[in-house]
Amino acid sequence: MIRTHGAGVLRKEHTGERVVLAGWVARRRDHGGVTFIDLRDATGVAQVVFREEDTAHDLRSEYCVKITGEVRTRPAGNENPELPTGDIEVAATEIEVLSESAPLPFPIEGDVNVNEEVRLKYRYLDIRRDAVARTMRIRSQAAYLVGDVMREQGFVNVETPTLTRSTPEGARDFLVPVRLQPGRWYALPQSPQLFKQLLMVSGLERYYQIARCYRDEDFRADRQPEFTQIDLEMSFVEADDVIAVGEELVARLWKEIAGYEVPRPIPRMAYADAMARYGSDKPDLRFGNELVDMTAFFSATPFRVFQAPYVGAVVMPGGASQTRKELDAWQDWAKARGARGLAYVLVAEDGTLSGPVAKNISDAERAGLAHAAGAQPGDAVFFAAGQAHASRELLGAARLEIGRRCGLIDESAWAFVWIVDPPVFEPVHDESGAHSGWTPVHHPFTAPKPEYAATFHEHPDVALADAYDIVCNGMEIGGGSIRIHRAEMQQRVFDVLGMGKEEAEAKFGFLLEAFKYGPPPHGGIAFGWDRTVMLLAGGDSIRDVIAFPKAASAYDPLTGAPTGITEQQRKEAGIDVRGEPDEES
Amino acid sequence: MIRTHGAGVLRKEHTGERVVLAGWVARRRDHGGVTFIDLRDATGVAQVVFREEDTAHDLRSEYCVKITGEVRTRPAGNENPELPTGDIEVAATEIEVLSESAPLPFPIEGDVNVNEEVRLKYRYLDIRRDAVARTMRIRSQAAYLVGDVMREQGFVNVETPTLTRSTPEGARDFLVPVRLQPGRWYALPQSPQLFKQLLMVSGLERYYQIARCYRDEDFRADRQPEFTQIDLEMSFVEADDVIAVGEELVARLWKEIAGYEVPRPIPRMAYADAMARYGSDKPDLRFGNELVDMTAFFSATPFRVFQAPYVGAVVMPGGASQTRKELDAWQDWAKARGARGLAYVLVAEDGTLSGPVAKNISDAERAGLAHAAGAQPGDAVFFAAGQAHASRELLGAARLEIGRRCGLIDESAWAFVWIVDPPVFEPVHDESGAHSGWTPVHHPFTAPKPEYAATFHEHPDVALADAYDIVCNGMEIGGGSIRIHRAEMQQRVFDVLGMGKEEAEAKFGFLLEAFKYGPPPHGGIAFGWDRTVMLLAGGDSIRDVIAFPKAASAYDPLTGAPTGITEQQRKEAGIDVRGEPDEES
Repeated sequence: MIRTHGAGVLRKEHTGERVVLAGWVARRRDHGGVTFIDLRDATGVAQVVFREEDTAHDLRSEYCVKITGEVRTRPAGNENPELPTGDIEVAATEIEVLSESAPLPFPIEGDVNVNEEVRLKYRYLDIRRDAVARTMRIRSQAAYLVGDVMREQGFVNVETPTLTRSTPEGARDFLVPVRLQPGRWYALPQSPQLFKQLLMVSGLERYYQIARCYRDEDFRADRQPEFTQIDLEMSFVEADDVIAVGEELVARLWKEIAGYEVPRPIPRMAYADAMARYGSDKPDLRFGNELVDMTAFFSATPFRVFQAPYVGAVVMPGGASQTRKELDAWQDWAKARGARGLAYVLVAEDGTLSGPVAKNISDAERAGLAHAAGAQPGDAVFFAAGQAHASRELLGAARLEIGRRCGLIDESAWAFVWIVDPPVFEPVHDESGAHSGWTPVHHPFTAPKPEYAATFHEHPDVALADAYDIVCNGMEIGGGSIRIHRAEMQQRVFDVLGMGKEEAEAKFGFLLEAFKYGPPPHGGIAFGWDRTVMLLAGGDSIRDVIAFPKAASAYDPLTGAPTGITEQQRKEAGIDVRGEPDEES
Repeated sequence: MIRTHGAGVLRKEHTGERVVLAGWVARRRDHGGVTFIDLRDATGVAQVVFREEDTAHDLRSEYCVKITGEVRTRPAGNENPELPTGDIEVAATEIEVLSESAPLPFPIEGDVNVNEEVRLKYRYLDIRRDAVARTMRIRSQAAYLVGDVMREQGFVNVETPTLTRSTPEGARDFLVPVRLQPGRWYALPQSPQLFKQLLMVSGLERYYQIARCYRDEDFRADRQPEFTQIDLEMSFVEADDVIAVGEELVARLWKEIAGYEVPRPIPRMAYADAMARYGSDKPDLRFGNELVDMTAFFSATPFRVFQAPYVGAVVMPGGASQTRKELDAWQDWAKARGARGLAYVLVAEDGTLSGPVAKNISDAERAGLAHAAGAQPGDAVFFAAGQAHASRELLGAARLEIGRRCGLIDESAWAFVWIVDPPVFEPVHDESGAHSGWTPVHHPFTAPKPEYAATFHEHPDVALADAYDIVCNGMEIGGGSIRIHRAEMQQRVFDVLGMGKEEAEAKFGFLLEAFKYGPPPHGGIAFGWDRTVMLLAGGDSIRDVIAFPKAASAYDPLTGAPTGITEQQRKEAGIDVRGEPDEES
């Protein structure tokens, strides 16, 4: 090492020692012939003092320097209690500039208000900033902890291929042309799902991997074309066993990184309950304000809109005092979500109701509504009526928005919940809206719960899956299921899905073939690692916790990727571009 | 868990316990109404006994079963000392077939003599075999150990992008068309080299990653299109610091996995010495039999072939007794390596020389040759003459071949060596063989050793690099260097390489831009993880240590990848195939 100490480790007890430091010039202050710089390295910051004439160098921000000097105790009154090294300073006797810095596109120290694309273009400078570096270190610590838990639990770390076969399922695959075999392609995997199931057939029994996954999706705010999963699979288990491992992982991460003892067992909630109470399969349980089912209440309503299979409500505390403009904004909000609007009733302080809905309902309904909805004087009640699922989703979204606007969410809280027992299938509708078939809610290898095992193909509408998602603060951080391992059951699932033998063979042939050779019962889970680390690190976006993320349109402002390629590469790859080729390289 | 115990953990002290096991039927023996099966799971094997009438099932090989029974001590004389569970057996009271197995393409138990493509097609069955499963577990253990060392040494685990920019350098990149931006492509990285250097600019100081890398190479025996590197980089270091971390990694792996205490410090050998003594930059030091430089000895030779810039020799102990056919075979061997042949002299038991060379040299040379070459009566001496580098490489290969044929190699030995001080540049020759320029031996960011820093551009032929490769048993398992961090020095390297500003900008623009902002001195190393694990696990091929490797022609016999794609995918990817498209999917 070209230095003897990290800047951030120096303390009073080093006083009198000759040290060599190396790092970056973080701040510089000149005071009558004496210059102070804060020298920053990965261990922290120390104050370095030198007389101006001691150096010919004009040390500027972010110069990389090597400093030789003596540690001395700061003069009384000059200590900086904010800084771990605040009791000392280093009197420099020698300063060597290791490399200079051009003027910075944005400052490293202090808060930065610069657009994200610039930060990403200069990501290496962005990471020099304390908060960003801290996030990178948290991600690293989290990965080490995952390794600890997996090792303790006997998991075998296996790397699965990323140049593999395209499985035309779910999202789109990224494709990789094979130069030596024109017309043939690899696909980048959307997850190691098929390989981890093969590893169960292989008898390894407990597999895990921190797996890079790929999805060629139209760009959405918080998606990346490549992302990371903590992927695991276990043999001879029931759902409880996988859930226990998942809880151990979550508990270790939150304890070591967030200092939070996750209460265990983490509560479980049936999917149907989550939808009924929170209008979401990933309910934010940091606050209550649950949906209220008003279907029975309005069973004889004269109001046409409420003559529906489902009528539900959610209360906005204090919402009666909203302005006309605010109430109109709710309508726009609902329309932006594809709803017709958001019916509401305002409960005055004296208990009388107002708003468009109030006039349309019966006297009895008016009299009982506030009580039935759980509203207090001064509250607003929002309604949704129609098909239960869509109405609940709208109310669930309104509940979250109410939670944010009314400050109902304790931002310092952690609320974990397992959402269990989701449906196996969901209906597919054709263009006319008529039911035309079934699609898997998870994937076609998800096992029905044992009580539906014999009958799910006869009643796909009611069959529940042996699946579980883990939700933290309203975000799904992981999900998994027990898989089907019996060919007979798998065939019935394919039948429900209307997937013929040939289609199944074409899509999953090698997995079905493997399942002929004594597959064990198995199940697993995958954690969305970027999102999990984002929660742990307190970020707003998964881009915050990815070292070199893509910006909008899957563009990397740092490297310029994706780029055009040379004619030579084009020729060798054995492919050509449809449409306008790009002339740049 | 659907079982109470792993089969392999049962011991005498479990006698009398009721246990539930689950695993695979490994072997079955029937003895007069009583059936014995070896039940295998990930923990080992236990013998299960049941009366034939107890089960209607016809349990066949590799059926996956759940067995309830009682542990009992085996009758005296029936113990199996080969088996950790050999003192007990499980008397089954209940057997449930969890899944059946079709007839196997090859047996799981015992040695298998089946071609590799079949093993890879049924890799999930191949991994059920004890030796293969053990290798998978060794790889996993090795990865855990790497994590331990890296964490202890303060390294930050960072995931770098795999959808990135094509850098037309070294091998060919795999390219990924971007559906939403026709004509634009990502490249899969050949290594995280540029990103890890950016992370040093970012101030993280110590980075590591178990990184997936990609190279679109023409298929060679022991290459895979995707492979794994243990990749690390450090700031404010000199070569010794990186070497120390590398030794810690190697020492921990070999100690924990191979039970071998690596002697430290691992010896270092200059590249020039390795070439002179072993004819290789990755010498196998498990045996001696070094090359002998005979240039001076033959300085006045009448033999035209030996009137060359370099004449070297290697001795084959006992080689004088080779048949004419064997000696001819050496000529073919040399020709297959691109040489004209392999001159030799045979030393008879009485010290007289024979063979074609013997007649062409002078009396004095004949008299002194055996002594000068270090040959004993009965040995053969092989010669190469010409340019030193190529001649030494030929003799180095002959030395290895001699080592193998003559049993000179101690297969149980471990011989580690750092090869240091390689040249920075190697000459490029045009079609006529004339010197036309220079190319980097490693990559253009490799720093010259300090003593060449000021002059390497004037004398590129003699400049040595601050680089180091670690070699084990004649295989390079890792390599790295101190990098250039000063723009001025980088520019001189580009000048030597004849790389103009524009070309450098096009290839490495974003790294050069980053280097404007106070880059620290830094260096690193990358271990070829597949090869390292292969050595640790005692395999012959890196395919042995990869869970799902590609076979010849980069084809995956298991999934069938690469495959054709659908017209829909072809359309969406925005690309088309040149030449014959493939109609299959």
